[in-house]
Amino acid sequence: MRNVAIIGVGITKFGELWDKQLRDLFIDASLEAIKDAKVDLKDIQAIYIGNMSAGEWVEQEHIGPLMADYLGVRGIPSYRVESACASSGIAFKLAYEAVATGLYDLVLVGGVEKMTDVSTEESTHHLASAADREYEAFFGVTFPSLYALMARRHMYEYGTTREQLALVAVKNHRNGSLNPKAHFRNVINIDTVLNSPIVADPLRLFDCSPISDGASAIVIASEDIARKYSDTPIYIIGSGFATDTIALHDRSDITFLWATAEAAKKAYKMADIEPNDIDVAEVHDCFTIAEIMAYEALGFAERGEGGKLIEEGVTELDGKIPVNPSGGLKAKGHPVGATGTAQIVELTLQLRGEAGKRQVQGAEIGLAHNMGGSGSSAVVHILSRVRR
Amino acid sequence: MRNVAIIGVGITKFGELWDKQLRDLFIDASLEAIKDAKVDLKDIQAIYIGNMSAGEWVEQEHIGPLMADYLGVRGIPSYRVESACASSGIAFKLAYEAVATGLYDLVLVGGVEKMTDVSTEESTHHLASAADREYEAFFGVTFPSLYALMARRHMYEYGTTREQLALVAVKNHRNGSLNPKAHFRNVINIDTVLNSPIVADPLRLFDCSPISDGASAIVIASEDIARKYSDTPIYIIGSGFATDTIALHDRSDITFLWATAEAAKKAYKMADIEPNDIDVAEVHDCFTIAEIMAYEALGFAERGEGGKLIEEGVTELDGKIPVNPSGGLKAKGHPVGATGTAQIVELTLQLRGEAGKRQVQGAEIGLAHNMGGSGSSAVVHILSRVRR
Repeated sequence: MRNVAIIGVGITKFGELWDKQLRDLFIDASLEAIKDAKVDLKDIQAIYIGNMSAGEWVEQEHIGPLMADYLGVRGIPSYRVESACASSGIAFKLAYEAVATGLYDLVLVGGVEKMTDVSTEESTHHLASAADREYEAFFGVTFPSLYALMARRHMYEYGTTREQLALVAVKNHRNGSLNPKAHFRNVINIDTVLNSPIVADPLRLFDCSPISDGASAIVIASEDIARKYSDTPIYIIGSGFATDTIALHDRSDITFLWATAEAAKKAYKMADIEPNDIDVAEVHDCFTIAEIMAYEALGFAERGEGGKLIEEGVTELDGKIPVNPSGGLKAKGHPVGATGTAQIVELTLQLRGEAGKRQVQGAEIGLAHNMGGSGSSAVVHILSRVRR
Repeated sequence: MRNVAIIGVGITKFGELWDKQLRDLFIDASLEAIKDAKVDLKDIQAIYIGNMSAGEWVEQEHIGPLMADYLGVRGIPSYRVESACASSGIAFKLAYEAVATGLYDLVLVGGVEKMTDVSTEESTHHLASAADREYEAFFGVTFPSLYALMARRHMYEYGTTREQLALVAVKNHRNGSLNPKAHFRNVINIDTVLNSPIVADPLRLFDCSPISDGASAIVIASEDIARKYSDTPIYIIGSGFATDTIALHDRSDITFLWATAEAAKKAYKMADIEPNDIDVAEVHDCFTIAEIMAYEALGFAERGEGGKLIEEGVTELDGKIPVNPSGGLKAKGHPVGATGTAQIVELTLQLRGEAGKRQVQGAEIGLAHNMGGSGSSAVVHILSRVRR
């Protein structure tokens, strides 16, 4: 397989974007990425788009040709991929493989979601489409409650504390306050989290990522082309995707993100590195417990030790492995289909040294971890500033 | 790229399948394909699933891990692809490319849709998600009316007649009567069509494909593996995908399926054959006019001459290029996400000589044509009984 590099990135502000349609968001992010890559639109050979449920949120399917059309590149293949909140992480994997195997030389990949045109109740219902509708959602389970079950069991098995969960939110809000594209830019403290309303015990409002609108996009190219366009290509050196049971009740251990661990194993092996080599990571913190469990599944901490990792400050912006410098899903926002490529946009900026006030100093290797549902799909990518 | 072959196919009955869930349908078709291929489940390395709108029809997204889980292959990558009614045709393209480029050796690809759990009005609304929601569907346009506009203009430009449209339905019902898996097996005549209720002038009830439930699945493998499992591997020799404007009002000519012509051009070039070489075809007859326009875009007839082709009997089961021996979308049924791979299931049976009463004698090369929306995504595959 050929070396593949990221040569351009774009991202809209995340938030409640009342003045934008679904297509506007994707086109805004795409044009920013194309401008950043200094490529001509006509050189784009294919498009891969992650989107979870535009059919449910804005009653628009057939996103592939829609976006190719509005971007002004009618004719080329344009794929829409869905894997719940991992949609664009998986779109990125397909795009990467298409270039790595020589099918295309230059492609656009991104993700988009427009979630705030309906009520929170309706959005929560649509999000539950990522769980097992027949055996979970039908009986009233929502995502906060699924992650609450994981949190409660993690606390029981490993002594993880309510305060440790809160620290994830505190860190991610602090990081998000430094990110101009973030949905929330307010700094909070532990009390803010502990005094917020209970959503699904033990999870409170500030343990949950928000419902957001937004889009993100990336131009990737084969190495030889990448070097023509960019002085700072960021190389894709690892890629892994794995699945788990869709329903939580079918797992033998709900305190461990098995698909994440499997996806990470593949990505580490391909990149020929260890968790220890990661300088910066964007992980899927849809709920605070998810970030703690991600630490463990990605090998940043031993099983059950994720809570201690946040407590010891290891994942802070100035820690050994800064996690979610963008603010993560918690503060940057979580327009579900846009999240996977948004993580890769952030890592690209970090590895280029262009992340402004939230820059992780000297970062050379970054990891993106994107999950769907209660972790039943998981995709991990490893990026490098240095060609390998 | 490596040669890739189809080694197993499966398809459920199409129709109103009240006793089956979405997952049952996909698993039934998949197990049939896996049994037909004589492979072990554990040898399947990845799954590609076409599905248009399970989120809207049965409120279930995240189809990838759901199906991997229920098939008993938890862990492996499982992709869900959406491109409206072309969803599984495009899933097939991705699966083919993944094997051809060496990413995987043995994969399962299929499609599924469960459409009859809601009213016809609701299904029509969901189907309109494949059009431009903001500028077409929002103002009341539905798919029969979009194709009615194409039909009316085709009649005006080229003298295509009402009777020629009807002949497409008559042929496809006759073929469907020979297919035990078809939704409709009733033979009809021209009067049946001409006396049926108007849906969107000039299209009548019998010009429209039905709303169906169903699934189809295929096992494909790299050539060396294929020969270990199968005495009758069917080779994939051409593959093309193109997009057009999503909205009909943005096209300069609504009588021609431009994306189909572009996709076909790529597939013919790759296969190094001409339209003349096709022995049997499954084309996207969502409405009778669509089949006539497909004849022209695929090069079976000159521009404007599609009506004459059906009139002259060229596309009948015993004609020069039999089209839709399965009964097509019109009679076999149209569970939208399942249609693309269902066409390829039929061609595989035809090229193996296993199509029973609807067998096209001596067919060696087959073409599958699958479209999304009003033709804004189109994918064409060419299959061959003989290795090339």
